[in-house]
Amino acid sequence: MSLKQEIFDFVETDLLKIEKALESNLNPYLDLVRDVSSHILFAGGKRLRPVLMMLCARLCGCRNGEEVNLSTIFEYLHTATLLHDDIVDGADTRRGKTVAHKIWDPATVVLVGDFLLSRTCTIATDTGKLPIIRVITNVTGVMSEGEIQQLLNKKRLDLTEDQYMDVIYRKTAVLISAACQVGGLLADAPESEVHALSEYGRHLGIAFQMADDLLDYVADPKITGKAVGTDLAEGKLTLPLIYALEKADSQTRPAMEKIILDEQATDADFSYVVDRIILSGGVDYTNQKAREHVAAAKQCLDIFPPSPEKDVLLKITDFAVSRDS
Amino acid sequence: MSLKQEIFDFVETDLLKIEKALESNLNPYLDLVRDVSSHILFAGGKRLRPVLMMLCARLCGCRNGEEVNLSTIFEYLHTATLLHDDIVDGADTRRGKTVAHKIWDPATVVLVGDFLLSRTCTIATDTGKLPIIRVITNVTGVMSEGEIQQLLNKKRLDLTEDQYMDVIYRKTAVLISAACQVGGLLADAPESEVHALSEYGRHLGIAFQMADDLLDYVADPKITGKAVGTDLAEGKLTLPLIYALEKADSQTRPAMEKIILDEQATDADFSYVVDRIILSGGVDYTNQKAREHVAAAKQCLDIFPPSPEKDVLLKITDFAVSRDS
Repeated sequence: MSLKQEIFDFVETDLLKIEKALESNLNPYLDLVRDVSSHILFAGGKRLRPVLMMLCARLCGCRNGEEVNLSTIFEYLHTATLLHDDIVDGADTRRGKTVAHKIWDPATVVLVGDFLLSRTCTIATDTGKLPIIRVITNVTGVMSEGEIQQLLNKKRLDLTEDQYMDVIYRKTAVLISAACQVGGLLADAPESEVHALSEYGRHLGIAFQMADDLLDYVADPKITGKAVGTDLAEGKLTLPLIYALEKADSQTRPAMEKIILDEQATDADFSYVVDRIILSGGVDYTNQKAREHVAAAKQCLDIFPPSPEKDVLLKITDFAVSRDS
Repeated sequence: MSLKQEIFDFVETDLLKIEKALESNLNPYLDLVRDVSSHILFAGGKRLRPVLMMLCARLCGCRNGEEVNLSTIFEYLHTATLLHDDIVDGADTRRGKTVAHKIWDPATVVLVGDFLLSRTCTIATDTGKLPIIRVITNVTGVMSEGEIQQLLNKKRLDLTEDQYMDVIYRKTAVLISAACQVGGLLADAPESEVHALSEYGRHLGIAFQMADDLLDYVADPKITGKAVGTDLAEGKLTLPLIYALEKADSQTRPAMEKIILDEQATDADFSYVVDRIILSGGVDYTNQKAREHVAAAKQCLDIFPPSPEKDVLLKITDFAVSRDS
């Protein structure tokens, strides 16, 4: 049985509950909100964030059902940022579907993103737990600053690995970390466990995003629903490319830079850069870094006794770097 | 001395504190965030919302200084909605200046709006007071749904007065009401006072928006910095027009409707509609309704003993409907 199947079998019942909660939390609202949100919310997302929150809550002994409803905020927040991000990126497709702002107008999508953000804050506030509210408001701040930073980083050819790490923390890891942390907080787990879960999520999130960034260069577009070299075409420098640029000799680097900055770059140009990335070891280096974060994520769970939840949380870290989509 | 001057003299010191807090809360952040936010934040806004919050807090005996910092969230939230709204409306100017999304790109403005929204939630959460956090998250939800509703209402010629009232509650009154309510909550005022302040703010907000909608038809563009008939050109039906459409005879109404729906309507067409609004009594009717809400707002303050703050809060209600900009 594949790793994906093993994880899926364990969380199948929870996934159904999450889907139901995601729908029912939107039901009382305007048709338009539901339609726009659903377009991306129900387009085959993995529900990684809500699933992680529920697993972490259960790992710490919480099984009162409250975790299902609360877990939706991590999918809503994720969706809100995707809606606004797609506008910012000028992307055409997401998960193999036309992006929302090409079906509805960007204005509508901005407002629906705002709505999902406000639902997130409301559901968090409804818990009445200040530590949970604090985590959520912190996440929205960190992510929002990160998105602005990412906009400023576009086509910045001198982006360093450290700056890249900051971007992916803000873009992905902080939310996954928050989902795990909130699971612990909801279960009223001791500070040490909450911290361990937060760190587990951070490492997992970093590994996950690195694997995602690799997919942009090595994956089959038919499986990912995303064209190869999309990040490159958008002028987004990710670790494989940062590494390749750093290793490039004084003739190759300017040639690569020219293509990255060229709005009219051809497929042949992109192939050249992709070849440079692979030959320089940029793919291997990124892979190795991702695996280091997987190992660190696993280590964070050492303080928890064996349990089926722990087992699945460990499997999810391996899955994060073995995805094909 | 004019009403405006009397109010200004009383709040002058507080206004300086508010300006300082508005700046210093943004200072640690990226230059871009500061630039985009400042463009609209420091473009001569009246700071009505923070001023109201501070006055209401003091009316209930709070003078510990915490009210200055907290009051900024009502200006940030207001600014965030203006930034996103201007994108939605496709407006060209705001407060006599080119709108942010024509100077920076819309993507940047979306993200800076998101950032201000997240700052709002963070500052509210930092109070550690759940009732205050609840008010703020509720406001973001009500406003966000309202903005989507307003988008759906565009060019809806059958918009009723009740639907209009819902729009202006969500667009303006809920935030002004929240500012007043949070003033009471920060002062740990009794439930009856908090409720009275919330109602005072709601009536004031409604009167304020009605006066604003009137300005669109009767004001001097040189003073407002806004062209006459902007709402009309955008297909936004406000009370003066709703009233005029209702009173129009079977020949006039279709002529008016044609102009409202016509993307190529001329200045002469707009003048025709504006004349209909004035002659039908739409301006007088809206004025009268605004004054009823001013009276209701004043009545809400009856439970408070006389004080300089109460005096200014009463003056602000009169100012709200006597503005020329």
